[in-house]
Amino acid sequence: MIHRKIIPALVLILLLSALPAMAVTNEENAEQIAAVQTALTFIWLLVAGALVFFMHAGFSLVEAGLTRTKNTANILMKNALTISLGILIYWAVGWGVMYGSSIAGLFGTDQFFLIGADNALWNSWFFQMVFAATGATIVSGAMAERTDFKAYLLFTVVMVAVIYPVYGHWVWSGADSALLSGGESFLVKLLGAEFHDFAGSGVVHSIGGFAALAGVIVVGPRIGKFKDGKAQAIPGHNLTMAFLGTFILMLGWVGFNGGSTLDGNDAYISLVVVNTFLAAAAGAVTAMLITWHRTGKPDPSLTANGILAGLVSITAPAGSVENWAAIIIGTVGGIVMLAGVFFNENRLKVDDPVGAIPVHAYCGCWGLLSVGIFSVGIGNGILADAAYAAGAPGLVYGGFSQLFIQIAGIILAFVWAFGVSFVLFKLIDAIVGLRVSEKEEIQGLDISEHGVNAYPEYIID
Amino acid sequence: MIHRKIIPALVLILLLSALPAMAVTNEENAEQIAAVQTALTFIWLLVAGALVFFMHAGFSLVEAGLTRTKNTANILMKNALTISLGILIYWAVGWGVMYGSSIAGLFGTDQFFLIGADNALWNSWFFQMVFAATGATIVSGAMAERTDFKAYLLFTVVMVAVIYPVYGHWVWSGADSALLSGGESFLVKLLGAEFHDFAGSGVVHSIGGFAALAGVIVVGPRIGKFKDGKAQAIPGHNLTMAFLGTFILMLGWVGFNGGSTLDGNDAYISLVVVNTFLAAAAGAVTAMLITWHRTGKPDPSLTANGILAGLVSITAPAGSVENWAAIIIGTVGGIVMLAGVFFNENRLKVDDPVGAIPVHAYCGCWGLLSVGIFSVGIGNGILADAAYAAGAPGLVYGGFSQLFIQIAGIILAFVWAFGVSFVLFKLIDAIVGLRVSEKEEIQGLDISEHGVNAYPEYIID
Amino acid sequence: MIHRKIIPALVLILLLSALPAMAVTNEENAEQIAAVQTALTFIWLLVAGALVFFMHAGFSLVEAGLTRTKNTANILMKNALTISLGILIYWAVGWGVMYGSSIAGLFGTDQFFLIGADNALWNSWFFQMVFAATGATIVSGAMAERTDFKAYLLFTVVMVAVIYPVYGHWVWSGADSALLSGGESFLVKLLGAEFHDFAGSGVVHSIGGFAALAGVIVVGPRIGKFKDGKAQAIPGHNLTMAFLGTFILMLGWVGFNGGSTLDGNDAYISLVVVNTFLAAAAGAVTAMLITWHRTGKPDPSLTANGILAGLVSITAPAGSVENWAAIIIGTVGGIVMLAGVFFNENRLKVDDPVGAIPVHAYCGCWGLLSVGIFSVGIGNGILADAAYAAGAPGLVYGGFSQLFIQIAGIILAFVWAFGVSFVLFKLIDAIVGLRVSEKEEIQGLDISEHGVNAYPEYIID
Repeated sequence: MIHRKIIPALVLILLLSALPAMAVTNEENAEQIAAVQTALTFIWLLVAGALVFFMHAGFSLVEAGLTRTKNTANILMKNALTISLGILIYWAVGWGVMYGSSIAGLFGTDQFFLIGADNALWNSWFFQMVFAATGATIVSGAMAERTDFKAYLLFTVVMVAVIYPVYGHWVWSGADSALLSGGESFLVKLLGAEFHDFAGSGVVHSIGGFAALAGVIVVGPRIGKFKDGKAQAIPGHNLTMAFLGTFILMLGWVGFNGGSTLDGNDAYISLVVVNTFLAAAAGAVTAMLITWHRTGKPDPSLTANGILAGLVSITAPAGSVENWAAIIIGTVGGIVMLAGVFFNENRLKVDDPVGAIPVHAYCGCWGLLSVGIFSVGIGNGILADAAYAAGAPGLVYGGFSQLFIQIAGIILAFVWAFGVSFVLFKLIDAIVGLRVSEKEEIQGLDISEHGVNAYPEYIID
Repeated sequence: MIHRKIIPALVLILLLSALPAMAVTNEENAEQIAAVQTALTFIWLLVAGALVFFMHAGFSLVEAGLTRTKNTANILMKNALTISLGILIYWAVGWGVMYGSSIAGLFGTDQFFLIGADNALWNSWFFQMVFAATGATIVSGAMAERTDFKAYLLFTVVMVAVIYPVYGHWVWSGADSALLSGGESFLVKLLGAEFHDFAGSGVVHSIGGFAALAGVIVVGPRIGKFKDGKAQAIPGHNLTMAFLGTFILMLGWVGFNGGSTLDGNDAYISLVVVNTFLAAAAGAVTAMLITWHRTGKPDPSLTANGILAGLVSITAPAGSVENWAAIIIGTVGGIVMLAGVFFNENRLKVDDPVGAIPVHAYCGCWGLLSVGIFSVGIGNGILADAAYAAGAPGLVYGGFSQLFIQIAGIILAFVWAFGVSFVLFKLIDAIVGLRVSEKEEIQGLDISEHGVNAYPEYIID
Repeated sequence: MIHRKIIPALVLILLLSALPAMAVTNEENAEQIAAVQTALTFIWLLVAGALVFFMHAGFSLVEAGLTRTKNTANILMKNALTISLGILIYWAVGWGVMYGSSIAGLFGTDQFFLIGADNALWNSWFFQMVFAATGATIVSGAMAERTDFKAYLLFTVVMVAVIYPVYGHWVWSGADSALLSGGESFLVKLLGAEFHDFAGSGVVHSIGGFAALAGVIVVGPRIGKFKDGKAQAIPGHNLTMAFLGTFILMLGWVGFNGGSTLDGNDAYISLVVVNTFLAAAAGAVTAMLITWHRTGKPDPSLTANGILAGLVSITAPAGSVENWAAIIIGTVGGIVMLAGVFFNENRLKVDDPVGAIPVHAYCGCWGLLSVGIFSVGIGNGILADAAYAAGAPGLVYGGFSQLFIQIAGIILAFVWAFGVSFVLFKLIDAIVGLRVSEKEEIQGLDISEHGVNAYPEYIID
């Protein structure tokens, strides 16, 4: 029983590599090579998964930083419980619904509690699990500062158990009849291409963003957000946190997109990461320039959201577009985000304190669409060495079918996530109450829900 | 002399992989394969070690966040010096005591200053070094807000040079006669199994926690902590930091437990990481539910400590238990932590501002015990593809010997770490004074020890 | 089109590794081995690059923490835009100038917009890109609290497009005639050795620091920094952020130095990382002890800068010196930093709010010099298993030529970076104005440049 007894173990390895290997066969070598390739994939997905997990710290800081002091502890608790419940629920139910044996391409039906798991499955589960809780986190940001804690937890459980994994099943399960990506699916046959969402602009971000939209409609705006129908700015309490959170999210996206090759030996990971950073940069610069032009001053929190807009937008196309297209996608992402903020506040009249819906729902949709526009396609020699699962060529390269199925996927995402979430929030509201009382909201959720102050020593306005 | 001249280097690699390799032999291939396997382990331990290093940022934030503004700079300095001194001392002394040639299985006696080190040793040292300073960090949290800076540094030196590595030698050195894990050890012979502490519930956390217990007894409670024998709440100054620190620690645990396989080719790393996250989640949910039930409101800082409780608990058994057992271990860890807080404040009457002793000492012991209960054992077909160094089967699988040696290891950890630390703190108190003056404590250690304010512009209560 | 359909993919991998491989040849195996080696390098550089990227969060926090509340949003924006513009500019121009086909060893002339890139190039670009923006970030810290936002952005563009990559071309391009490292360079012929800067003490830190020195001279000190010619302390607003930033930077240096082997299969990465941490620790302890001795109290922000001083100093020699030398290098780095702060404030009378010039310019020079003193050289049996691109032996091992070329490299760095930056800042000052108005500076740049407060709810002095 040798464990942590590192010196002998390492000596052994070194001896093995130094000794003239005796009578090893080609086949034995080939097996060992395959084992190393698998091991490299496992390590890469663990590292990538760790980075994606850390995004929950990023979301916590962005959400806390962009809201008020009096609701900080509540936001931190919601985020901590989102990932904690997410881990348990995705282990018990979510994974099975997403990747279990398919019923008519609609949802999975086994592998609950990871029964019978082996090392490969644990590795896959870890990487998928850190994605699963993200959708609910998006919702927590949009509904911040007035939503009941218990109600939010109930929603999170259903989100991770059902809403996220069902749509995920349609796109990523690999089932022959999966609604959006199976060869046997009537939609795929009808539209002539498979839906392409490389790392989850749709599966993660649009689904989360549409659920958030349902949530903010049902829960209503914060007290004071609209005066005479006009949106009022309610500044967050800590920009440093918001920016640190944004940096953490950008770091996490190396794993989010880079890990989504699901293969550490796949050289084109590098293209994915490069496209990801180009789009993020373009989103930031765009948001800065537009706010500068419109208000005379470059706006910090919208610039930070510009980074996130670029990141969400490039998440679907990261592996199948050229660098210049990534920059366009990020630029348009920044514009979509800003337009979305304006649209939400002035047309929809919904209140989303951190801008989660523009960033995740709207830019997620743009990312999905952009696949149908900019994907290089396979076999035309462009990105020949790098393209992965590019789908059919996009508009720019003369194809139409990919754009059709991308639009179909967006519609399905909206109908499914917005629809189910809307009903669910109405149900939760009826049963436990979705919103805290007016008195509690004015007092702040930290005291009313948790009996604490996040910064008890500081005197605030 | 080619360095950073990346284009030629990469071209070379690519050429090599593209050219038809000439006259390569099986043996040459086998050597290359072994070299890649070693390289993958080196990379994994560097990455895992980097994540564990980052835990020092996590500890800094948890400790600073859960204490008062006036002692923040002092806490940051203690943490920064813990790792800085830790690096130098573990290089000069600690590693040699832990992994040098053994004297009767009690401690190592060479490899000081890493003399004669090669790449394998540097790699191992880096990963072990980032563990070594953690024990002292635990102590800094428990003794915060009243301990003399110089006294703490003196303790840290001895902790990293002697207290931590001697116990580590008994468990992880691989010496034949090592007290708790050597085949020649009388304890191992007597109890019929080797002590199993996969990643350090005992070696790191219990040792640190027991030293902290000795420290808080010798240094006494903060002014105002007990009134008429009743513990008073002294809220920390920044919950956002405490939660960010907790997220950083959870991230770090991917390396702490995952890296402890010491082999990047070991596929079961994935099981280790999955068990780690399941236990953390269970600890958080448990702490939240119990505080909710008892006080009517889910408590944020105890929930954060619930995450840490789950993480510490699963550190020993992570590689040798099934998923369901990991969830139980985390759940019980959450209970142990809460009971420990109650026990410390109401029975022992000790003052531990951040709850370090319940989290690290008590949950560490629970983690060690849980190995004797839930370890699957080897050769019974359970986790056959995944188990590593599982030890003898635990109670649940019909074994008793593993539980006995786990209890023996806990007793030894307590006697050694509490005993030596108690004497050491008494000595330090006699020589340089362990505690700051009453005036300095009331003023805050930032001003008295460092002449600065952590947040000089803010008006506080 | 299989993507994210992980179960089939993994099953395939496992089948491949389990099946008796049929009729595989030695040559096929050798190709596969080379492919895995390349894949490991790609993964390592992506991970290392991600850690270096995260250093931008570290710089943001150090700079924000060590300056005043009223300029925080401005600092965050500058850092976010530094990396965002850096990504786009280094993609369009900087990479080509640094690594494109050389004109007389002076600068590169193609590969702009990464035209024709393949996976290897994207991988290299990502790792180099995260370094490129660092130089400008150093400048943003030194010039904080009084520099116009637009002016800073203009400088950043030129820094990333020209100043950084030209010097980088001289050192790292691999061009035969590159000024400081090409075999055909007259300087190299004259001085008898190639300039050695393993990971950028000079290329990144001295260049950034010298540009910063030019900047602070042109922009002038903050209002109130000097009274009657005597430097006044202007404390930063948040030490916790400054320390968190320092921890993040130290984490990032694992990638910064460790990744600079540019080869995941190079076992000596471990020596690099160990030397890096030893030097950082020595720098911290040195700065703490000296400030303790001089003022009676160990100073927190100078201790944090001591960590950075050690890190910057070891960046050039990390791969070619013994452990004991790394400790000396870090120790001297701590002294150089403290002396540099004193020199800047009392002799040069320049104002550098975060101490960026001592840390990056002066310690960068010390790091470059230390190569000429402590490098073991190649072929003398010292570090035989570990040394990489050590250059000629340093003074300690009886060589002189390496020291001469290191001094030449420092002089060139100063002339180039200080000279060009000085002219550039003068130009920018003439065209758009380098400094905000007195009124804006007193009000704070957050309001005047961005129209926001970073912490709007808090009452400050």
